Amino acid sequence: MPGVDPKSYVSFDAKVRQAKAAERGKFQFLFLPDGPSQMVDIDNEAPNFNLDVMLTLAAIARETSRIGLIATGSTTFSEPYNLARQFKALDIMSHGRAGWNAVTSSGEDVAANYGQRIPSSADRYGRADEMVRLVQALWGSWGQDAWVHDQATGQFAKGDDVVPINLGGKYVASRGPLYIPPSEQGQPVVVHAGGSPNAHALAGRYASVAIGASFTIEDARAQRAAFRAGAERAGRDPDEIKYFPGLMTTIAKDRRTALDRRIAMTGRTFPQRTAYLQQMLGVRLDPARLDDPISPDQLAAARPSPHDPRSAHALKIARQGWSLRDVLAHGVIDYHPVIAGPAVEAADHMQEWFEAEAADGFWISPDIYEDGVDAFVDGVVPILQERGLFHTDYESATLRGHLGAPAQYGPDPRVMD
Amino acid sequence: MPGVDPKSYVSFDAKVRQAKAAERGKFQFLFLPDGPSQMVDIDNEAPNFNLDVMLTLAAIARETSRIGLIATGSTTFSEPYNLARQFKALDIMSHGRAGWNAVTSSGEDVAANYGQRIPSSADRYGRADEMVRLVQALWGSWGQDAWVHDQATGQFAKGDDVVPINLGGKYVASRGPLYIPPSEQGQPVVVHAGGSPNAHALAGRYASVAIGASFTIEDARAQRAAFRAGAERAGRDPDEIKYFPGLMTTIAKDRRTALDRRIAMTGRTFPQRTAYLQQMLGVRLDPARLDDPISPDQLAAARPSPHDPRSAHALKIARQGWSLRDVLAHGVIDYHPVIAGPAVEAADHMQEWFEAEAADGFWISPDIYEDGVDAFVDGVVPILQERGLFHTDYESATLRGHLGAPAQYGPDPRVMD
Repeated sequence: MPGVDPKSYVSFDAKVRQAKAAERGKFQFLFLPDGPSQMVDIDNEAPNFNLDVMLTLAAIARETSRIGLIATGSTTFSEPYNLARQFKALDIMSHGRAGWNAVTSSGEDVAANYGQRIPSSADRYGRADEMVRLVQALWGSWGQDAWVHDQATGQFAKGDDVVPINLGGKYVASRGPLYIPPSEQGQPVVVHAGGSPNAHALAGRYASVAIGASFTIEDARAQRAAFRAGAERAGRDPDEIKYFPGLMTTIAKDRRTALDRRIAMTGRTFPQRTAYLQQMLGVRLDPARLDDPISPDQLAAARPSPHDPRSAHALKIARQGWSLRDVLAHGVIDYHPVIAGPAVEAADHMQEWFEAEAADGFWISPDIYEDGVDAFVDGVVPILQERGLFHTDYESATLRGHLGAPAQYGPDPRVMD
Repeated sequence: MPGVDPKSYVSFDAKVRQAKAAERGKFQFLFLPDGPSQMVDIDNEAPNFNLDVMLTLAAIARETSRIGLIATGSTTFSEPYNLARQFKALDIMSHGRAGWNAVTSSGEDVAANYGQRIPSSADRYGRADEMVRLVQALWGSWGQDAWVHDQATGQFAKGDDVVPINLGGKYVASRGPLYIPPSEQGQPVVVHAGGSPNAHALAGRYASVAIGASFTIEDARAQRAAFRAGAERAGRDPDEIKYFPGLMTTIAKDRRTALDRRIAMTGRTFPQRTAYLQQMLGVRLDPARLDDPISPDQLAAARPSPHDPRSAHALKIARQGWSLRDVLAHGVIDYHPVIAGPAVEAADHMQEWFEAEAADGFWISPDIYEDGVDAFVDGVVPILQERGLFHTDYESATLRGHLGAPAQYGPDPRVMD
């Protein structure tokens, strides 16, 4: 995009700047998805992932003080001991602000980078369940009060309280212990991203945060209820799991300015995206005529695809008379609902979903071309604060505290096989 | 140790301080071994490893500017794609200062943390060889000139130059590509630590640095020659591989002060170590009589163990009349030769070994209780500089430059199957 450092893809400085902006806005956490092993249209787009999520969060941990730090770590393609060690080290490094998004990898594209095929859904979720339990057992293998570091006697730790876990299941095994004492929040918070019944069950057993993709209030309510039901089935209080649907924002002084910003950022991909939109609306669209509105005849013939939950909204936007280019600039085929416009529209969206019990919070993806996070923090956050919907400062120094998640060290004794 | 922060084991601040001290001393690199999965006598000693080597180096990368950053990454218990990604991301983050110590894991103690047994030596080194080639192929899979980031045309990269590697062998496989462009040094430097014929062959093929453990000049000369011969057999110039034997130092104004410092640090372990020393010298030693010199009768009966290369030196120290406690304080059963005394003794040791072609440099392990690195930098480095044996400033900004290692991107075409 014009005016943006074209090397920001490899800039850890840029990531730290964005994190500081989010912390200025009192965000409870950063959430870094991961999947750079997916094939990317590299001619036209920077890969939409960090070079390495753990190194990015390490840099941010050193240069921020309050914001939580959540990264994705695949349960399918990681060694549990390596993963447990790195997340707990991040938790120490950040003084209790780390979270692990424990997901299964589902793309053959990803599996190929590990010289493997994607296992069946049952095997993926079976392994994920064992992984989380084993990782939490390693986290708790250094007894909570074992670290005495007594200079008078020379005792470093109580060896009897730092003990092997000797866990082995169908998919993963480890002896332990992990030589890392508790952090300020004990151990990292567990997060899950997904929306399937398997996801509801896994998150219900272990997660304090569920990240979702919902395009309607109705779907978000159903997702939130399903995660809460999963927690209840696992013997937990449903309030222990918070549902955060995604929201993408381009905040600007008015709709036109926001659309133009999105066209400048992503307009190069619109000819290809026209083909997607055509399927969603069930009408022929011409990628050579991006500046024309979709004709009344076309709109009358449109049949929103029942297979894509974004279709009805896309048709609603198209019927407002925007050009094909502007319809696409509204983000009608993006990964989450998109607000492109003034700050109050984002605040209204969040308030409506929150009050309808469709969300406990939101995973905000502001467009991050230099000032996208700042635009949200300076525009949307004050409105939410004025409405009494968002805190004006951190009440805690740990991620567990930010979330109101109960204390936990080692596995949750309520969650049994 | 009295006067030391007893929580330094979990302090990333302490690691960064030590790294800055080493950079002030113009050290070419930091070298972080790894193996926290080994069982540790946690009652008496802090684990001698970083909580996580990559997160430690990430913090250091952000807070230093010239020193090289090498970490151990097991070829036995890591996923090659994950390892390749994290080391190349560190290389980007540090602007071309990363190195990968590609070792095989050989302890059953370590394997147990991965729910596995240690493979045979042939399988370990077979996998290591495939791992290095695959990792280097992933590093080179983003074409050297592929990143155009052209703001006028909107092209991000030349897709035809960012390509799958589709490598698969007996042990590991990956499709790729890895979406990380070249760093300032292209890709990380490869390092190997070991001393067996397998190590000489593996390092000879791939490594720019070999880290060794030699207790005599004769052994170090033989090790250095063996690594150089390994490089020649692989079709490389032997000067492309540098041999760095270890050296542990406690620098103080005189021998007595240095010994007392070591006693304060590690004296708690001396009763157990007496049993080791007894085996090395072939005489009975009484751990209850640490303050007595070893008697003339005992010394006359001593038979240095032919199985331990440290035995002859241990006997030499014992014959100087030191108490049993002081003999142990000399570090006669430590992992590397130990200099405990004034700075000039360390400088003399290094000069002697260097001039005898027993070393291209040294892996220095100063005792790191707060000021151990500073004592080396302020005491030993100026002597080496005065003697014309050590540079007075960095000549380069990358690890490859510091080592005089030739440019390489992707696999080395001279090293064939």
